Amino acid sequence: MYNYKMFLAYDGTKYLGWQVQTTQPLKTIQGKLENVLSQLFDEPVQVIASGRTDAGVHARMQVANFHTTTSKSCDEILAYLRDYLPQDIAVIQLKEASERFHARYNCLTKRYAYYIDTNFSANPFFTRYSYHIPETLDIAKMEAAAHHLLGTHDFKSFTSMKNKKKSTIKHIHSITIESAPCGLVIYYHGNGFLQHMVRILTGTLLEVGLGHIQPSDVIGILEGKSRALAGPTSPSHGLFLEEVLY
Amino acid sequence: MYNYKMFLAYDGTKYLGWQVQTTQPLKTIQGKLENVLSQLFDEPVQVIASGRTDAGVHARMQVANFHTTTSKSCDEILAYLRDYLPQDIAVIQLKEASERFHARYNCLTKRYAYYIDTNFSANPFFTRYSYHIPETLDIAKMEAAAHHLLGTHDFKSFTSMKNKKKSTIKHIHSITIESAPCGLVIYYHGNGFLQHMVRILTGTLLEVGLGHIQPSDVIGILEGKSRALAGPTSPSHGLFLEEVLY
Repeated sequence: MYNYKMFLAYDGTKYLGWQVQTTQPLKTIQGKLENVLSQLFDEPVQVIASGRTDAGVHARMQVANFHTTTSKSCDEILAYLRDYLPQDIAVIQLKEASERFHARYNCLTKRYAYYIDTNFSANPFFTRYSYHIPETLDIAKMEAAAHHLLGTHDFKSFTSMKNKKKSTIKHIHSITIESAPCGLVIYYHGNGFLQHMVRILTGTLLEVGLGHIQPSDVIGILEGKSRALAGPTSPSHGLFLEEVLY
Repeated sequence: MYNYKMFLAYDGTKYLGWQVQTTQPLKTIQGKLENVLSQLFDEPVQVIASGRTDAGVHARMQVANFHTTTSKSCDEILAYLRDYLPQDIAVIQLKEASERFHARYNCLTKRYAYYIDTNFSANPFFTRYSYHIPETLDIAKMEAAAHHLLGTHDFKSFTSMKNKKKSTIKHIHSITIESAPCGLVIYYHGNGFLQHMVRILTGTLLEVGLGHIQPSDVIGILEGKSRALAGPTSPSHGLFLEEVLY
């Protein structure tokens, strides 16, 4: 068996997310990749990502791997992918990996970015890539709230995950808020993120930034361990998977 | 009469260009703006831009003005435009201007940018906003060629304009080539640009960058005064009107 590791970027606007849906596999990123790679290798190819991304979420740098029974040169695979993938999915780099490399199990940390357009009229070049909130946000308060979320916590209040057997304890290394061409961007770096976690964290930080809740309220939201306590789930189109670290 | 000056941005992807087409006025930026402003002021409003942009060309900062017989506050006009314009057109700023201000006649210089994606696989976030040329371009040679284009010249070889009465003499202040997130960008600053001129200049500089012609060949192209001598017209979707100066 041969194992290939790839780095890819995609515009998630038109997709149902990363993971193959049984009814509409070609409306997923995984489905598109598996379809093209299975044609090239003339055998069923399964692609494993570092983690799934939701419908509409973008990736500036996702990592995935796939096994094949025959070997082809990386240049040949890259050229075939470029020619047959739609223009909203791009494989940027591809290399042979050790047989044991697994994009999901071996992932150590991930970086996400959430873009917010604070202009009065939304910037036409960022409407597909940011959440438009034409308000003045109190960045200092948002940073104070973010500080309470750092470290190891039970993030049960910040996920819509229904599976009660799976642990909701995660570690957030950093949350930073920076200015961006569209307005601002919130970067998240952690050892893993639960379903909708980055979007609910963002929705909660925005509640703080808008003055609806106080930074210290975040402590009670964490301790309450109930989804109902946290802010709304921010829309998917502002979210980018930025980097996956191994 | 009241005169308003506005600064606007638009994603030209879905439009036939700036100027109203008699058959499909609402497929033009001017048509969309005039439609919304005429509704707001309840009278026919004509919008004058610094210059037309071709089908598919974007504007990061276009300037336009319009006259009305009644007065409204800038905040009210801005809010109405935000609510009724499609999300690919945004009026960023609006202010009252002196009655004599004319967006086209008073324009002194313009800055354009042409984006080129040199990645092997096109960056999915720039496919609508750059021309994909997955090649190594010789930037030094392109800069040498650009140097011959600076100053006042007859740019007859660099336009597809058929009107023989109109002067084809223009002055280019600067052409600079910089690296950009997608690969590279060529900035043009001049006192005016003829129809398709920036795209033909770009197509010619790319011929130099690809090694098909030499930098000094540009001198002969200028002197020959024939469209057939210059390079191809680069696609419209890589072109942005960046700034209009008064």
